[in-house]
Amino acid sequence: MCRWMAYRGRPVPIETLLYKTQHSLIEQSRHARLGVETFNGDGFGVGWYDDGDGPGRYRSLMPAWGDHNLRDLSAHIRSPLFLAHVRATTGTPVQDTNCHPFRHENWLFVHNGAIDRFHEIRRELVLAVDPAFYDAIEGSTDSETMFALALTFGLMDDDPIGALERMAGFVEETGRAHGIEHPLQMSLGVSDGERLYAVRYSTIGDSRTLFHSADAQTLRELYPDHELVHDIGDEDRAIVSEPLGDLPGVWEEIPEATALIVQDGPDEQRAFRPRALAGAA
Amino acid sequence: MCRWMAYRGRPVPIETLLYKTQHSLIEQSRHARLGVETFNGDGFGVGWYDDGDGPGRYRSLMPAWGDHNLRDLSAHIRSPLFLAHVRATTGTPVQDTNCHPFRHENWLFVHNGAIDRFHEIRRELVLAVDPAFYDAIEGSTDSETMFALALTFGLMDDDPIGALERMAGFVEETGRAHGIEHPLQMSLGVSDGERLYAVRYSTIGDSRTLFHSADAQTLRELYPDHELVHDIGDEDRAIVSEPLGDLPGVWEEIPEATALIVQDGPDEQRAFRPRALAGAA
Amino acid sequence: MCRWMAYRGRPVPIETLLYKTQHSLIEQSRHARLGVETFNGDGFGVGWYDDGDGPGRYRSLMPAWGDHNLRDLSAHIRSPLFLAHVRATTGTPVQDTNCHPFRHENWLFVHNGAIDRFHEIRRELVLAVDPAFYDAIEGSTDSETMFALALTFGLMDDDPIGALERMAGFVEETGRAHGIEHPLQMSLGVSDGERLYAVRYSTIGDSRTLFHSADAQTLRELYPDHELVHDIGDEDRAIVSEPLGDLPGVWEEIPEATALIVQDGPDEQRAFRPRALAGAA
Amino acid sequence: MCRWMAYRGRPVPIETLLYKTQHSLIEQSRHARLGVETFNGDGFGVGWYDDGDGPGRYRSLMPAWGDHNLRDLSAHIRSPLFLAHVRATTGTPVQDTNCHPFRHENWLFVHNGAIDRFHEIRRELVLAVDPAFYDAIEGSTDSETMFALALTFGLMDDDPIGALERMAGFVEETGRAHGIEHPLQMSLGVSDGERLYAVRYSTIGDSRTLFHSADAQTLRELYPDHELVHDIGDEDRAIVSEPLGDLPGVWEEIPEATALIVQDGPDEQRAFRPRALAGAA
Repeated sequence: MCRWMAYRGRPVPIETLLYKTQHSLIEQSRHARLGVETFNGDGFGVGWYDDGDGPGRYRSLMPAWGDHNLRDLSAHIRSPLFLAHVRATTGTPVQDTNCHPFRHENWLFVHNGAIDRFHEIRRELVLAVDPAFYDAIEGSTDSETMFALALTFGLMDDDPIGALERMAGFVEETGRAHGIEHPLQMSLGVSDGERLYAVRYSTIGDSRTLFHSADAQTLRELYPDHELVHDIGDEDRAIVSEPLGDLPGVWEEIPEATALIVQDGPDEQRAFRPRALAGAA
Repeated sequence: MCRWMAYRGRPVPIETLLYKTQHSLIEQSRHARLGVETFNGDGFGVGWYDDGDGPGRYRSLMPAWGDHNLRDLSAHIRSPLFLAHVRATTGTPVQDTNCHPFRHENWLFVHNGAIDRFHEIRRELVLAVDPAFYDAIEGSTDSETMFALALTFGLMDDDPIGALERMAGFVEETGRAHGIEHPLQMSLGVSDGERLYAVRYSTIGDSRTLFHSADAQTLRELYPDHELVHDIGDEDRAIVSEPLGDLPGVWEEIPEATALIVQDGPDEQRAFRPRALAGAA
Repeated sequence: MCRWMAYRGRPVPIETLLYKTQHSLIEQSRHARLGVETFNGDGFGVGWYDDGDGPGRYRSLMPAWGDHNLRDLSAHIRSPLFLAHVRATTGTPVQDTNCHPFRHENWLFVHNGAIDRFHEIRRELVLAVDPAFYDAIEGSTDSETMFALALTFGLMDDDPIGALERMAGFVEETGRAHGIEHPLQMSLGVSDGERLYAVRYSTIGDSRTLFHSADAQTLRELYPDHELVHDIGDEDRAIVSEPLGDLPGVWEEIPEATALIVQDGPDEQRAFRPRALAGAA
Repeated sequence: MCRWMAYRGRPVPIETLLYKTQHSLIEQSRHARLGVETFNGDGFGVGWYDDGDGPGRYRSLMPAWGDHNLRDLSAHIRSPLFLAHVRATTGTPVQDTNCHPFRHENWLFVHNGAIDRFHEIRRELVLAVDPAFYDAIEGSTDSETMFALALTFGLMDDDPIGALERMAGFVEETGRAHGIEHPLQMSLGVSDGERLYAVRYSTIGDSRTLFHSADAQTLRELYPDHELVHDIGDEDRAIVSEPLGDLPGVWEEIPEATALIVQDGPDEQRAFRPRALAGAA
């Protein structure tokens, strides 16, 4: 399927995490170790927040590993909050508009996983999208449909995780009505430029891997002399489909059916429970 | 907008019409003379019938004028029936899946024109697409939506022009319900591999240009000594957005609100009248 | 052939000049008014200096007008010194490595024009390239060859204009030895991140157009109430193939056979005289 | 590195070998089993002979596995002689002009392998290319340089294998003069539209794998009831980097330092011995 990573913390050049780690996301585009596919060559994208209006985005339908533009841009763009994604298609076309992150106003959205038998329920899911968000659908992936549904169910309001739970509930409800046993498989990275939301969930209860970096205090105790922890800030946090390196203790697995909110001050972790919509489907 | 051409007759290398004419379609991709835009650089496509299963297709999001693959393919592929299209986007993304011809089973479809204020009625139009054809929508253009609607209204049944009239009627009805004065502007090229259907129509009554080549008999009388008519067959016919050359008498304009059916034996020309659907919209 | 622009002054978002002017470079990619070609759809590139190591670069073989990445990047990247280029090929392939700016270490190079009958003398020109710069040649254009020759003749030393004069002299000498009457046609934009060098020259004495913006003092006197001059700095200067707007007095033509050096303090303008190499060719 | 295949025999749709085999070349683009890289996603190409003038060619910088055009074209193009190649770059840019097969007049050329430390001797190798073939170099690969050298050393004359031996000898000579111990690693597929030439050679004596299909007689005895041998012609022969299937006896390894000439009547196999050029380097 895919691999993604997200970062929130002190501003750093994007390349710091995208290229300059032991098992970087770009390396994972060629040699993923925990993925369903061993490589992810069907396009990529990165979205970042900075001083400009709204998030910037660079997407391409080419493999990430050979893209000279991405190499340059990630060396020159500094950001305190960004999400990057490398794609392995499950059947939809290889085109820019199917590359993550998807974007609406200030929001970015990346996804690893799939809606099972998506083509059978695509129409029903899309019909549920609020007309206000419908015309923003430019591609044909299950991921973009999930984003449009999350927007429909209130992602931009005061409880984003709740909106994602309603989206997941609606997808499961719709899938089951079509006899699909395990409709949803996902890890999600979502941001409004302030907070970073990460979700790990699957109907079958065996989700794609997802990790967050340990907090600075822990890292300093583990590796007091390591260059890694020299510059790390108390609020710096990375979320990744698979660890960017092999140092024990640096990467902690996010549990099944869990949402993580990375924010100023203590982060928040809570159960993720898809919510059925009364009377839907 | 766009430029397109179609051919039905004796098998010829595609390049004969695509490159080797005075004002070829590839030349029109750089310097259209009758178009709204003076060039068409947002992708192209060609679909052709031959001995193989179903029509073949080659599409690309690159400008046609610089595509070496198209140059080679059109020199090596011989076909008795093909349609080619160069695109100038009216706003939807430049990607392969937005390039014409669109295809469903044995059918090919090209369009020049636009649905006015498409983004306002896109959702309503797409909702009317039969579920059987819904998942075939891979891109985001008004043209592909028109094709999916034509399929929904019976294009593959026994009266293709009737299905196109119902599609046009439905688009106009839907548009007018949203206060759009002149919803539809189109020239269409459609084929099932047997017949070639061409339509020129617009709500405003001032449609994009469309021409067909004169019949062989006429051409022989006009230019008895011209190389052009040497090899021409009695059934050979080309349909073009704008003439491929300047010889007087070779290109005849297809009238407003008219459908032309190119087939074995005499071709058929008839009025094209959008049909409202009882109770629709 | 092509269009380019360059800017040196207070840091601005690249979009300010690339998109947000009356006749911006992106607009010129569709509708050039002073060019040999009326549009420039065979790729583009932008190179910029900022706090990062060396200049950043984004190039693509797609037309500039439809590139969503360029739109985003130019809104989010601020730079005090950048060069941008839209390409219309004179025959060499449409590929990233043929897009300007070319780059070597801290240097960027853009070119509008052509070496006449380049294919006849390409080998001889390339053989003259210093082995140290030879392997940096990735594409196949006359422009990149000119850059490699300028590096060979000392571009990175203390007299860049002198090196460009030796490059021009060598191209003319080589061309004439092959019976080419007017070998060179060029406007050049070159930078090392400190100064911006612009050259207008052609063997025939009828060069492609090139303009620089008037100085801030002049602009303030001309348009005391215009928003344009509100924020303009005393050192801000733009160089363009064709004016970005129609306001009289804003754009001053760079004379034939002239080099302009944009730098801190007064800019410098001097004659550009190709220099033959003793014993060359 | 890369994977390639070639076919000479009765005309077949290209897809027969490119897609419709157990471990097809397109499957190898994702999951090569004998290659240095496990996938080959940096572009591809196919060249074929048919009734048209010279060989046709379709190349793309995209991964082969997701290319819908290739799927269509290979289903619709029938050919008695074709070569196909999937690329994994060893460092040169991902662009069409670096994709195989390379072509000159009636000749096609594919290569798997590399010239060791090519960037150090590229200039010297290119300088040896005959001016008549120099301007045909459009890309920047070692492979294309090898082709240009083979043309220089007489590929189009009466002893193509001899020309390839002189090319190999010159590359080794040049490399060794620069202290490169094992300059050349290659399997080659070359054709003039009549014969198909395959070479397996490396300086180190441990070449990339290369196989040819067993002759029809052998296949019929091995698998008298297998669908595979039903339609096979006495002259049909495929050459592949790695077997297209697992049936024992179908694929025979071409020995080290060997050239194979596939032609009407008995094929010819002979030793391949690089030839030093007197006084070269």
